[in-house]
Amino acid sequence: MAWDPGFETAFHPKTVAIVGVSRQPHFFDFVSHLQNAGYEGHIFPINPKADGEVHRGCRFYRDLVSVPEPIDLVIVSTPRETVPAVLEDCVAANARNVHIFTAGFKEVGDARGKELEEQVVEIARRGGLRIVGPNCMGLHVPASRITTWEDIDPQSGPVAFVSQSGGHAGALVRDGGRFGIGFSKVISFGNATVLDSTDFLEYLATDPETRLICMYLEGVKDGSKFTAMVRNINKEKPVIVWKGGLTESGSRAVASHTGSLGGEREVWDAFYKQTGAVRVGSLEEVLDVTMAFLYLRPPRSRSTALIGAGGGNSVAGADICARAGLDLPTLTEATLTELGSFIPPEGTIIRNPLDIGVVLMDINMLLRSLDPIAADPLIDSIIFALPLGMVPRGLRDQLAPDSPMAVLGDVFQRLRQGIMDSLVGFHRDHVSRKPIVVVLQGSAGGFAPGQQEEIQQELLQAGIPVYFSLERASRAMARLIQYHEFHGALR
Amino acid sequence: MAWDPGFETAFHPKTVAIVGVSRQPHFFDFVSHLQNAGYEGHIFPINPKADGEVHRGCRFYRDLVSVPEPIDLVIVSTPRETVPAVLEDCVAANARNVHIFTAGFKEVGDARGKELEEQVVEIARRGGLRIVGPNCMGLHVPASRITTWEDIDPQSGPVAFVSQSGGHAGALVRDGGRFGIGFSKVISFGNATVLDSTDFLEYLATDPETRLICMYLEGVKDGSKFTAMVRNINKEKPVIVWKGGLTESGSRAVASHTGSLGGEREVWDAFYKQTGAVRVGSLEEVLDVTMAFLYLRPPRSRSTALIGAGGGNSVAGADICARAGLDLPTLTEATLTELGSFIPPEGTIIRNPLDIGVVLMDINMLLRSLDPIAADPLIDSIIFALPLGMVPRGLRDQLAPDSPMAVLGDVFQRLRQGIMDSLVGFHRDHVSRKPIVVVLQGSAGGFAPGQQEEIQQELLQAGIPVYFSLERASRAMARLIQYHEFHGALR
Repeated sequence: MAWDPGFETAFHPKTVAIVGVSRQPHFFDFVSHLQNAGYEGHIFPINPKADGEVHRGCRFYRDLVSVPEPIDLVIVSTPRETVPAVLEDCVAANARNVHIFTAGFKEVGDARGKELEEQVVEIARRGGLRIVGPNCMGLHVPASRITTWEDIDPQSGPVAFVSQSGGHAGALVRDGGRFGIGFSKVISFGNATVLDSTDFLEYLATDPETRLICMYLEGVKDGSKFTAMVRNINKEKPVIVWKGGLTESGSRAVASHTGSLGGEREVWDAFYKQTGAVRVGSLEEVLDVTMAFLYLRPPRSRSTALIGAGGGNSVAGADICARAGLDLPTLTEATLTELGSFIPPEGTIIRNPLDIGVVLMDINMLLRSLDPIAADPLIDSIIFALPLGMVPRGLRDQLAPDSPMAVLGDVFQRLRQGIMDSLVGFHRDHVSRKPIVVVLQGSAGGFAPGQQEEIQQELLQAGIPVYFSLERASRAMARLIQYHEFHGALR
Repeated sequence: MAWDPGFETAFHPKTVAIVGVSRQPHFFDFVSHLQNAGYEGHIFPINPKADGEVHRGCRFYRDLVSVPEPIDLVIVSTPRETVPAVLEDCVAANARNVHIFTAGFKEVGDARGKELEEQVVEIARRGGLRIVGPNCMGLHVPASRITTWEDIDPQSGPVAFVSQSGGHAGALVRDGGRFGIGFSKVISFGNATVLDSTDFLEYLATDPETRLICMYLEGVKDGSKFTAMVRNINKEKPVIVWKGGLTESGSRAVASHTGSLGGEREVWDAFYKQTGAVRVGSLEEVLDVTMAFLYLRPPRSRSTALIGAGGGNSVAGADICARAGLDLPTLTEATLTELGSFIPPEGTIIRNPLDIGVVLMDINMLLRSLDPIAADPLIDSIIFALPLGMVPRGLRDQLAPDSPMAVLGDVFQRLRQGIMDSLVGFHRDHVSRKPIVVVLQGSAGGFAPGQQEEIQQELLQAGIPVYFSLERASRAMARLIQYHEFHGALR
């Protein structure tokens, strides 16, 4: 169908009816999930066998037409055989925004599933129902505190996620916070039987709360419509697209999951080429790339400086950056001279990548290298790779040659504060010109469990994205640059 | 040079002389590193300015010839200008096994560095010195408790690592324990000025303590000799080779690091093809693949079953396995029927990958699927992917519908024990036929910090490799299979 603006109410519903609420404690008790999320509207559990009873403070109704208020959103979680009757009830109650959680339709592959799915389409068409699903988790809107997941701490933000997998949607929402990512609307839409990705795109294109659109797709109904829309929207709001099932095994899995037609790899290659949509291939890449888009101003070119420690690490790092599509140009003579004025030549490598080697003992030397490199006209972004395993050991010896294990905590704290302060200060001075990302590499060394994550949060709050591997950081940065190259924004 | 058996003493030296020990506390105090590692031989610190003084219980000598015992290993860490004189002292003292830690030779790129390196070669040839380095960390032999790293907990085992980067060698040794990897000999050999990778290969080929050889190389002096040796050794002992600097940026970094000639990508492609050496491209891949070789019997083919949770996860998982080079064949009718007898059809996908979806609440169902799948004649290995974020949530609700946060710890422990017991039991029953690996996926969910690592250790001790991403698990398994395919061992 085309986008029906009437569905907009479903994103901030005053009333939600849930059909198929069990009287027993149940894993998918959407009443409790909404309540735990802090939803403040009215909830109407529907169950013909429980009419008049009370569940978690909400009165059961026998059916939708009995509900005494207009219903902004219906969630259906009854067995598949009953779904057509529930939809007829929706039509009769004029409750037109419907999320069908129930699975067991065309994705199962049996005749009955197909038949039921056709009935869903027919009733929706006849009754004007705007249906999300079936076989999906539906809507998650932190600002309205609506969700179908339990225990999700809703964090609002400018990112929309349109996903044909409820699992991926839940995982992104759960992990988003650690990456500094908040959400405007998350839509898990399963079989895409009525509302499809293009419908949601049409809405999100003009949604003022959405600045960036991520998608997980298994198939698309109208390829040319989808391509044209993405090409258009992607100019204003970056569209990050993960297509699942591009291998033969994956394509077979798609058929069983949402019953979508997987589509040929070549078709999708052409899609990315024509639209400039950001290509990603895993959930972690969605997180990595989204963080880069949210936190980094676009670098002016692919020319990056890598600052790190260790000769072998520098070789590996150069390989990784090159494979990701970043350039590591030679620094200018002026920069090399400036660096050489305070970095000794032995055991270090003064070039790009910069290897401050054993000098890591002096963390100030590492940080002092930031300014001259940022001033180099050939460099447009910086990756600062901290090898966690090495730093604390070096510093420990410098500060406390014969220190017992007991003092380690202190030293790490001092080290940490020094690094944080310098990086945050550098970022504040250079934010408009040379974007910087931090990579926390290798084993956690002497850091206590959870301390790496604390560092990540602290730097993120200062506006610096933090990655736990150079692969992930360089790939995310390259995707950001490619996006702006496509739109001709780079020099 | 050709391999000189005289060097063997250096791997279990009764005496070590260290030239250039500072009287001040210093980051690279090899005396204290040896002592901390529990080395039980005699240590002779050498420093002409400190003759007769005592450092950490060891008497300083003015030079090597003054040392009253035969010296099995000399470690040189004096400034580069003094190295030729120290080597002459080695010759005079008949101390022929030498590790030159000092950097600043041909890798610096200046005329003086080149000249000094030529002097090293000349003295070594004339005096019959067997030199590791310069510009390297030298030898790490847990059984002899010799090491040049501080605070390394030496774990003995059948893995040798020959590395042109001391940083990579140190990182592998530090992280090896977590992957259940112990070492026979780790050799960081830097510029490879005298002893080269082929020398160490020649020794390790017949070393009874070494069953598996890992290498990090930046360049090779005699390509055809190296290729012939690896082809030969690789038949008996798997040779895992990481070549650094295969990109243009990486190749430039190699020149500054060890002054090696990087070599063309095509040459290395041919090397892997001719020798059947296991190709890896990062430190984490060395760890992943080594763990697979140590813990898994070779699967009989690429046909793998993926057991996991979530429809989107299954699509992503199928894509990941296919990209790694694994096949996910359709299960036989008998297996599907058996699985269908206890797994309900709605919200699950009974195929390969097996998606037990929301049924995850019943962890027993997940584990019960192991036996029928292992019995399927089309399946030769199993990847059991536990989505950590989902499991505890599901189980928590099932066991304690209204539990306060306080009881969570208990539930996780019960869940954990159930999983562990079943997996370990399954592995015991099937170890000889169908290898299994476990993947702990996604965010840690309700697990406490460090708990994932505990699970990993517990399963490893039962002989089951554990990975934290499906990418890494499937790639490692594919490398193991490729190795045995090359040697014609698969059906």
